Amino acid sequence: MPSLEKARDEARCREFELQEAYLDYAAATPMAPQVVEAMVPFWSERFYNPSAPYEKARGVRADLEDAKTRIAHVLGTRASNITLTAGATEANNLAFAAVDGGVLCDAIEHESVLACAQERGGTIVAVESDGTVTASAVRNALDPTTELVSIELANGEVGTIQPVREIARIVREERLRRLEEGNRRPLLLHTDVSQAAGYLSINASTLGVDLMTLSAAKIYGPKQVGALWHADGVALRPLVRGGGQEGGIRSGTENVAGAMGFACALELAERLRKQEVKRLAKLSDRLRKGLAQAVPGVVFSGQSRAKDRLPGLVHASFPGVEARRLVIALERRGVSVGTGSACAASHMRVSHVLTAMGVAKEVAMGSLRITLGRPTTKEEIDYALLCIVECVEQERARRR
Amino acid sequence: MPSLEKARDEARCREFELQEAYLDYAAATPMAPQVVEAMVPFWSERFYNPSAPYEKARGVRADLEDAKTRIAHVLGTRASNITLTAGATEANNLAFAAVDGGVLCDAIEHESVLACAQERGGTIVAVESDGTVTASAVRNALDPTTELVSIELANGEVGTIQPVREIARIVREERLRRLEEGNRRPLLLHTDVSQAAGYLSINASTLGVDLMTLSAAKIYGPKQVGALWHADGVALRPLVRGGGQEGGIRSGTENVAGAMGFACALELAERLRKQEVKRLAKLSDRLRKGLAQAVPGVVFSGQSRAKDRLPGLVHASFPGVEARRLVIALERRGVSVGTGSACAASHMRVSHVLTAMGVAKEVAMGSLRITLGRPTTKEEIDYALLCIVECVEQERARRR
Repeated sequence: MPSLEKARDEARCREFELQEAYLDYAAATPMAPQVVEAMVPFWSERFYNPSAPYEKARGVRADLEDAKTRIAHVLGTRASNITLTAGATEANNLAFAAVDGGVLCDAIEHESVLACAQERGGTIVAVESDGTVTASAVRNALDPTTELVSIELANGEVGTIQPVREIARIVREERLRRLEEGNRRPLLLHTDVSQAAGYLSINASTLGVDLMTLSAAKIYGPKQVGALWHADGVALRPLVRGGGQEGGIRSGTENVAGAMGFACALELAERLRKQEVKRLAKLSDRLRKGLAQAVPGVVFSGQSRAKDRLPGLVHASFPGVEARRLVIALERRGVSVGTGSACAASHMRVSHVLTAMGVAKEVAMGSLRITLGRPTTKEEIDYALLCIVECVEQERARRR
Repeated sequence: MPSLEKARDEARCREFELQEAYLDYAAATPMAPQVVEAMVPFWSERFYNPSAPYEKARGVRADLEDAKTRIAHVLGTRASNITLTAGATEANNLAFAAVDGGVLCDAIEHESVLACAQERGGTIVAVESDGTVTASAVRNALDPTTELVSIELANGEVGTIQPVREIARIVREERLRRLEEGNRRPLLLHTDVSQAAGYLSINASTLGVDLMTLSAAKIYGPKQVGALWHADGVALRPLVRGGGQEGGIRSGTENVAGAMGFACALELAERLRKQEVKRLAKLSDRLRKGLAQAVPGVVFSGQSRAKDRLPGLVHASFPGVEARRLVIALERRGVSVGTGSACAASHMRVSHVLTAMGVAKEVAMGSLRITLGRPTTKEEIDYALLCIVECVEQERARRR
């Protein structure tokens, strides 16, 4: 960048001086004001144990059931098929615990799915270079002992939307084939929609899945609150035993406040979905174009067509720059962005997602995951763009 | 009760008309105002993912570590030995997952401990008629394959305080014996202090235990928040796998608000402990004496000496009266009390605790668990006493 241009940028940067831009909504979302409001009554007033026998406790039990009904409604299902958990990680583990036989997932799943699959010696299906796991790759990986296929609806690191409906068709075909062959082994399709909820339809029957993981923490709801939905006929098995709450599948006195917040967050996300998809797609497009214009050699990972990826996620790599240093330079300017999935971020190793997609190490090491959210404005995007361009330039200058 | 006396009581009852008395603090506690205050900043402002790489997230990580340090401080231990969980049930399950060999617990443990022990074909040690599990009963039940002994510090249904320090001595003797014999099998002592915290010292080394379960929900903290403490050298094994949080033992994005609330609640409970023990013991004594005087045939279960039982718990049985009907009659007067442990209450079967203590079925079926808490006043106790006496009288009259 010519020095005049740079000076001009710095001046513009100072204009923004008091500004901040949090752009890591795939790692954590603030609780929406409506969610906080929905939870408040359950902390110090309606705090009763939903299993207690008196009227006040029965009222809280009814609220809990109502929250589950509302969550189920967004999925087009029934409350009795919803098991509340302490977040998506537990829900994913619970899904895997439902089967004894072979398991299968793609190589860019969340750590919790990969860990469950690996522990069981499961098959890990390779993905395309844009992160897609094709239906035919799943078909080829199925074997007569497979009992669970786990494919997330959208990836939280590169934003790839997976062809879950097509994969559901493959799974149904395999079930039919087994039926004809007299193979009575079950075959279930699980999908983690933690990163997709609020952006894509999560209607369980439209997707054609048997198990679905939800997270409240990624949709402006409370942390450590999630759920596993299961289709009729799927028998879940507890990871934790005790008082028999959640139909005996998930014991422990229920977090009614959390359930109320979750229901509120999910309904809100669904209500805002179409307008947010449109708005965030436009903002990310602005960021992508800005980066493409201003940073020579920037590499975008994930699907190339906007409709095949999450609308609020930009995965950009700056070869020759260390993402770790970039993050520090950006945080000094008040810009918070991720590098790979946050769970792995504290280790600062190359993300398993980029490795599986075949991204070269030099490119992967210089990757930012920039995720927009409900509070993100055009001004924040412009400010972040300016800061990223400036920081990349400085880092590159340092290495010259 | 003579009808004049009854009429007088009813008049007094009307005086109290607008009053309520919640007396089921062993089932659920309201969040203390200080706890809510401690959590508020982490919902919509400091909501960052503690594993994210930028400064704001590192600040939240530091807060989380600070919360664990404060929790550990009350136990006289270090933060690195605290694993945060979604409540006591999960913590109890995690404790059992630490060993492969034989397990042993007493017959009046919480459902989560009993379920874990039973699943593993563990030894269930009988208790005395007052609920005590004696150190010699534990000694006799140990065998060379035992790897875990789990004895709660205080029982949540009848209030019996267990001789955990004596049991710890037995466990140490057995360890020495094994060492001398060249038996290298580990032997761990676990205690669930969910019901004891706030009333008894929970210093880990004074108690002489290796594993300790804590619950925030029973000490005016948030629900679905708890912890398992482990001694140095104890290797925990995950029930849930994923991003590797909590030292790889308990994956899932952390509930920092919950941890902050937990730390605040535990410190507060410890600070108020001595004065609350004194105050509640006096109030329960008033209730006991009142019931003993006014209700012929009332049976109190649990330890007879006040110092051997939880100060705020009165377990009273009214033979010939159905507790279920009593609860309904009381709730009409605004009095909320428990019957047996709340987890089992929705099933309305005779509690496993009373069965194990050898309480006759007719007595057990007429049992109320009345638990006092931080907000309980003398006026509430007097009101509740009046209502209980009246309701028992009415129920008995109905059956005559």
